[in-house]
Amino acid sequence: MDLTINSDRLSGRLAELSEIGRVGETGVCRLALSEEYKDGMQLVRKWMDEAGLETRFDNFGNLIGRLEGKNQGQPAVMLGSHIDSQPSGGRFDGTIGVLGALEAVQTMRENGIQPEVPVEVVSFCDEEGHRFGVGLFGSRGILGSLEPGELERADEDGVTRREALTDFGADPGKLQESEYDTRKISSYIEMHIEQGPNLQEQDEPIGIVSGIAGPRWLTVTLTGTSGHAGTVPMPMRKDALTGAAEIITAFNSIVQTEAGAPTVGTVGDLKVYPGGRSIIPEKVEFTIDLRDSDLARRDEYEQQLREAVKDISEKHGLRHDISDDGGTTPKEASREIMDIMSEESRTMNLTPPVLMSGAFHDASHMADACGMGMIFVRSKDGISHHPDEYSNDEDIAIGTELLYKTMLRLVERTS
Amino acid sequence: MDLTINSDRLSGRLAELSEIGRVGETGVCRLALSEEYKDGMQLVRKWMDEAGLETRFDNFGNLIGRLEGKNQGQPAVMLGSHIDSQPSGGRFDGTIGVLGALEAVQTMRENGIQPEVPVEVVSFCDEEGHRFGVGLFGSRGILGSLEPGELERADEDGVTRREALTDFGADPGKLQESEYDTRKISSYIEMHIEQGPNLQEQDEPIGIVSGIAGPRWLTVTLTGTSGHAGTVPMPMRKDALTGAAEIITAFNSIVQTEAGAPTVGTVGDLKVYPGGRSIIPEKVEFTIDLRDSDLARRDEYEQQLREAVKDISEKHGLRHDISDDGGTTPKEASREIMDIMSEESRTMNLTPPVLMSGAFHDASHMADACGMGMIFVRSKDGISHHPDEYSNDEDIAIGTELLYKTMLRLVERTS
Repeated sequence: MDLTINSDRLSGRLAELSEIGRVGETGVCRLALSEEYKDGMQLVRKWMDEAGLETRFDNFGNLIGRLEGKNQGQPAVMLGSHIDSQPSGGRFDGTIGVLGALEAVQTMRENGIQPEVPVEVVSFCDEEGHRFGVGLFGSRGILGSLEPGELERADEDGVTRREALTDFGADPGKLQESEYDTRKISSYIEMHIEQGPNLQEQDEPIGIVSGIAGPRWLTVTLTGTSGHAGTVPMPMRKDALTGAAEIITAFNSIVQTEAGAPTVGTVGDLKVYPGGRSIIPEKVEFTIDLRDSDLARRDEYEQQLREAVKDISEKHGLRHDISDDGGTTPKEASREIMDIMSEESRTMNLTPPVLMSGAFHDASHMADACGMGMIFVRSKDGISHHPDEYSNDEDIAIGTELLYKTMLRLVERTS
Repeated sequence: MDLTINSDRLSGRLAELSEIGRVGETGVCRLALSEEYKDGMQLVRKWMDEAGLETRFDNFGNLIGRLEGKNQGQPAVMLGSHIDSQPSGGRFDGTIGVLGALEAVQTMRENGIQPEVPVEVVSFCDEEGHRFGVGLFGSRGILGSLEPGELERADEDGVTRREALTDFGADPGKLQESEYDTRKISSYIEMHIEQGPNLQEQDEPIGIVSGIAGPRWLTVTLTGTSGHAGTVPMPMRKDALTGAAEIITAFNSIVQTEAGAPTVGTVGDLKVYPGGRSIIPEKVEFTIDLRDSDLARRDEYEQQLREAVKDISEKHGLRHDISDDGGTTPKEASREIMDIMSEESRTMNLTPPVLMSGAFHDASHMADACGMGMIFVRSKDGISHHPDEYSNDEDIAIGTELLYKTMLRLVERTS
């Protein structure tokens, strides 16, 4: 494929950045605000400077590179992602979005195109959330959406986020100065690895994201009666685990009611009390993670699950409790941006599938502030958060080309 | 009911013994070979002495009280159970069998009956097995059925069984001297609380045990593929927990194929790996406890379970492994002793239900050596191994009366 962007430069930078915090042959450990993170962010800043962007770190630990448009007062088109990783992460998650965005803007400058409106490339701080237990820090930060007490959360060595930010060079006492007036952002575009197997399955290099699923989190507790596994006849038992097993099976069916729908439902953890080979389980606790891009369907399935919990508990003589562990509403991508992506894909002789994102991204919160668009790049075997995470250079280049073309369309428009 | 045995003496002794190691109002902690155990055994020995039995401790920590018969060389009729308890046990488990046996023999003496054959009352050491992790020690000991290394097993304070036996006054270097020639025992009768809810359910004070179920122990491990709970579409998942749930449901049906059969099947413990709310379970391990008095039926159900594990694993794309954790064969009560118990019950205007024992007892191993019989006494709500364990004095007295009458029939017979 003929590409406008410089795919060699892009893949060279990806390789170079992957050396910072490298673990083994292919892994990366670049926890937010760590030394490796700082080194990585400095390298990206150097590349941004070379590309002619005006760069700065803000007080959330974000790196921002700005290119002024012909109309300086106009809202900016923002492109970005993150370069922090999980402790045993891969080289592509987040990183391709930051370096792809830089490549797109650099290509535009090299081609002598001056945008009508400003363009910003953002490398957001602590998307992953491993170190302090809560992620999407930088993107929530610029939108004024942090929770009380977040700065006091400590990592496993007892270092608080406040201390880590200070050590990074940010001033956590002046966060408000780094918040954005959302009227100053018109749109946010993020390229990211899919972290799922759909594109590989469909043999497509890239996809267009329709929205980010909103997870619904619950914990179900069933309580029956313990007893000796040898002495209590089956018809007299109130076994919490046999009840849980039927509920898990029912939940698995409920979320697959509509063939082809993107709904996913997971029981990721389950604990049995007291948990002995010869003791009838008295209590079982298990988690529910239910995600959908369609909130009405998610609500309907949650209701069906609640009915199944009630009916199956009654059948087994169990008490049940469902605790509400929160969740978020699904976020929709901008229809307009999706249409631009589709049109530009056709000029590249591509018809990217339209996909839901089951995982969160910095785009999740940006969607509350402006038009949001995402491009997914094929992930080998859907693996992420693991050294085996892999997307090939060609697919990343194709995604970056579409990011470039989409950006060009957006920066032509003044409000 | 008119009773031959002295029910006031019996209930008085039960109350007095329950003070040794008492915890709270109704609980008992009398771990094998502990100080409380020693005090309890000394008290029982004193009562045996008062009843005119010839008493001794053996090298397994058992207490044996013997009454000679007219024919001293004849095999003995043995009655017994245990007085050690679980850490938070009750007052009745085991104890009623020892004190009931003593009451039966003492009544016989007081009525001037000299048996044709010797009678022995045994208070077996460490039936419960909590302290050193393996129970039925004394009854296995006298039959020469200990496993290699049992004397070196340590309790949580690092005290080995060998040390505890020595401290108790036994000589663990001379165990063989305490083994029985099984030709010297004709039959073994044990009265025990039911530890299950059947007699309460049927409103009967006592039951006749048909056999002791043999448990079959397995551990099932299912291995699928982990993944992000948001990004892997349902049809592409290999979720070990959804497979396990279906197997547990299938197992629960299999063991209930024959309505009214005593088969019981329990999944008492289950662990999920890695066990996070938003991670598809990669591996699940769960235990199987399958018990039946009918070995052929138990084998058939085990086979059906193995097929279900295979089929359901294949359906979900999971690898499966079934590890064999052993078990024992079911033990049958002596038909002749059961018949005697039924006949004697009729003279008491009782028709005790015939029950399987789902739990082990000292009788389990004695059944290998001689004719075995057991009488169950109604347990309130089927509770045992808990301070709430309760059987009322009247039911215990009725059970002891049947024990007495059964013993009288057995001691009349010479071989």
